[in-house]
Amino acid sequence: MKATRTNATFAPPVMEARRWLDGVVFTADRPLINVSQAAPVDPPPLALRQAMAEFAIEQDSAHLYGPVLGNNDLRSELAIQISAHYAAEVSADQVAITSGCNQAFSAVISAITDQGDEVILPTPWYFNHKMWLDMAGVKAIDLPAGDDLLPDPEKARTLINENTRAIALVTPNNPGGVEYPSDLVHRFYDLARETGIRLLVDETYRDFDSRSGAPHELFQQADWDDTFIHLYSFSKAYRLTGHRVGAIAAGSPLLSEIEKFLDTVAICPGQIGQFAALWGMQNLTQWVAGERDEILDRRAAIAEGMPRLEAKGWRLLGLGAYFAYLEHPFEIASDDLARQLVPEAGILLLPGTMFTPSEDPAGKRQVRIAFANLDRAGIAQLFDRLQALSF
Amino acid sequence: MKATRTNATFAPPVMEARRWLDGVVFTADRPLINVSQAAPVDPPPLALRQAMAEFAIEQDSAHLYGPVLGNNDLRSELAIQISAHYAAEVSADQVAITSGCNQAFSAVISAITDQGDEVILPTPWYFNHKMWLDMAGVKAIDLPAGDDLLPDPEKARTLINENTRAIALVTPNNPGGVEYPSDLVHRFYDLARETGIRLLVDETYRDFDSRSGAPHELFQQADWDDTFIHLYSFSKAYRLTGHRVGAIAAGSPLLSEIEKFLDTVAICPGQIGQFAALWGMQNLTQWVAGERDEILDRRAAIAEGMPRLEAKGWRLLGLGAYFAYLEHPFEIASDDLARQLVPEAGILLLPGTMFTPSEDPAGKRQVRIAFANLDRAGIAQLFDRLQALSF
Repeated sequence: MKATRTNATFAPPVMEARRWLDGVVFTADRPLINVSQAAPVDPPPLALRQAMAEFAIEQDSAHLYGPVLGNNDLRSELAIQISAHYAAEVSADQVAITSGCNQAFSAVISAITDQGDEVILPTPWYFNHKMWLDMAGVKAIDLPAGDDLLPDPEKARTLINENTRAIALVTPNNPGGVEYPSDLVHRFYDLARETGIRLLVDETYRDFDSRSGAPHELFQQADWDDTFIHLYSFSKAYRLTGHRVGAIAAGSPLLSEIEKFLDTVAICPGQIGQFAALWGMQNLTQWVAGERDEILDRRAAIAEGMPRLEAKGWRLLGLGAYFAYLEHPFEIASDDLARQLVPEAGILLLPGTMFTPSEDPAGKRQVRIAFANLDRAGIAQLFDRLQALSF
Repeated sequence: MKATRTNATFAPPVMEARRWLDGVVFTADRPLINVSQAAPVDPPPLALRQAMAEFAIEQDSAHLYGPVLGNNDLRSELAIQISAHYAAEVSADQVAITSGCNQAFSAVISAITDQGDEVILPTPWYFNHKMWLDMAGVKAIDLPAGDDLLPDPEKARTLINENTRAIALVTPNNPGGVEYPSDLVHRFYDLARETGIRLLVDETYRDFDSRSGAPHELFQQADWDDTFIHLYSFSKAYRLTGHRVGAIAAGSPLLSEIEKFLDTVAICPGQIGQFAALWGMQNLTQWVAGERDEILDRRAAIAEGMPRLEAKGWRLLGLGAYFAYLEHPFEIASDDLARQLVPEAGILLLPGTMFTPSEDPAGKRQVRIAFANLDRAGIAQLFDRLQALSF
């Protein structure tokens, strides 16, 4: 068997975790608590669904190819909203639409790297970033985050060499939940600028940041688009996961390179999803604010519940966006633990081993809990089950 | 500027051609005739649009992530229909859904090749295939087709070496239009099997093949899925270009590799598109048959009109699916010709240079006409304008 791009990487973790459910029976008095998934499980609000339906029936353009980099109306609106959110001036030709934020990352990497190049990823990482780098022939250079899950720019500096093309951050972080302080992001930006590499910041969970105002000042920097590349997703804010709509903000010449990649792997983003993202931005601001309040309340419930887990030896390492990232107290490795939690506790979560290099012992002690789909009662039940565990 | 994957290839031809229209004014008595685009310009039939609308309003699953390799119901139905179409037995686990057929090609190449490998492409090629190979670090080895636009398996044999991983065919062909005879496809299959490489067959235009019955017998071969990889698109038959739905039929172990790629560039195909493809297969068989009749009639109109172009020195090299592939009689290269045709004749078509290596003189003499969106009157008008040309 010859080497191929895909066998340079691992199988999709989310699909693997789903297979752990096979053959396990859950009962009405102890149903499955699924905290594996960083995605809404409810559909978009009815008004948006109705608008999408009307669009599908009445607009021919709902069914036809559009521009590779996305529809002009959506690019313009997103540019306006990014400008407002970050107190900056971003133009439509600095924005492109992709079929989801994973595709945004893949496209950017393909436009800024070649075989054998290196990209620095803080660990724990978002596994799809690592997978794409593997398949692109790009070496992912681990930058282990501290105990607070924040990566250190000075440590990153020591990893930069002539093959380094970028540092890729995720804030609010997946899997860690932590919101990177504005000045930390800025220090990474300065480092990237000084060393002539790119700084990617995946802000998929931006809309659920607990801080008000701009989460960083990068869009305000002169010539930001020589250095900074912003990635975004419409999936979470408007519950559009099934429609695959994400975005990139970057320099216009770089977007022309990215266009080549998107042409061959997508041709264009789906039209219904693009329409829904635009409609959402224009009509659902207040609704999204309510969603954020709800997520922040659930986050508070996690924080309030932690003491009883801490009494059992658990530690909360990070909390925010959709995620709590925990250190477990057991002797067994997190991947074994996660598999056993399905039949033994009726919990599906992802182990830290899915977010860390196999040689990193930290991942074996950690688990990610995507709590966004659990209300306060569900979180209490989850904590009851975790508290009762012994291995 | 360092090398990157995307700067190893050229800009998307369709987007480039669109830019030729900038600033050109078309009048009511001589409107633009756009034969550049291999895509329906009308929406799907109303019944399908209504079904999609109902799905968007009433089904939560319309808006949520689905399995990476596509929804089970769609995979099952496609397996059944492939089995029927090719008089074979194909199972659901040998079928995967992708976000369009370009993505199907990208995913397959990533699962069967690594940096520096080679894939044989008959020329004229489908440009997105060439672009993806460039970006994947795979060398596209040209196999110039004969004057009949059919590639020769014995010539292909001489190009195979230890780096060769596959031969990729397109039938009915884009850009050439020609329908590869069943026994020709079979000879390529035998060659691939004998030499231990893969045979990809992109059958995007399958539903408009003028022949009745199975276009080849590959699915009937024992262990076909060790060698043969079938690519398909729902975009043309059901007019779903804006929803991005394509498919792969291949061995189940290969699909597990492909799943890694699709997870990172798509996560899942769009739900509305998958629903529409399934609904189309279950309800639009007779409607698609009518579409095929109409395309075949337009094809006949091209054939009937050719003598008056031949009198001016044009030659018809290939005709079928959505395409007529012609040799023009002028001294200027086809890319210059195509650019000048926009203001001077009100025609947008793609030049052969977009389908051939730059060093191949054949492409400079050739143009592709995607005639599917022109009715008989439109084809007559196109031929009037071509007949009147002089350069």
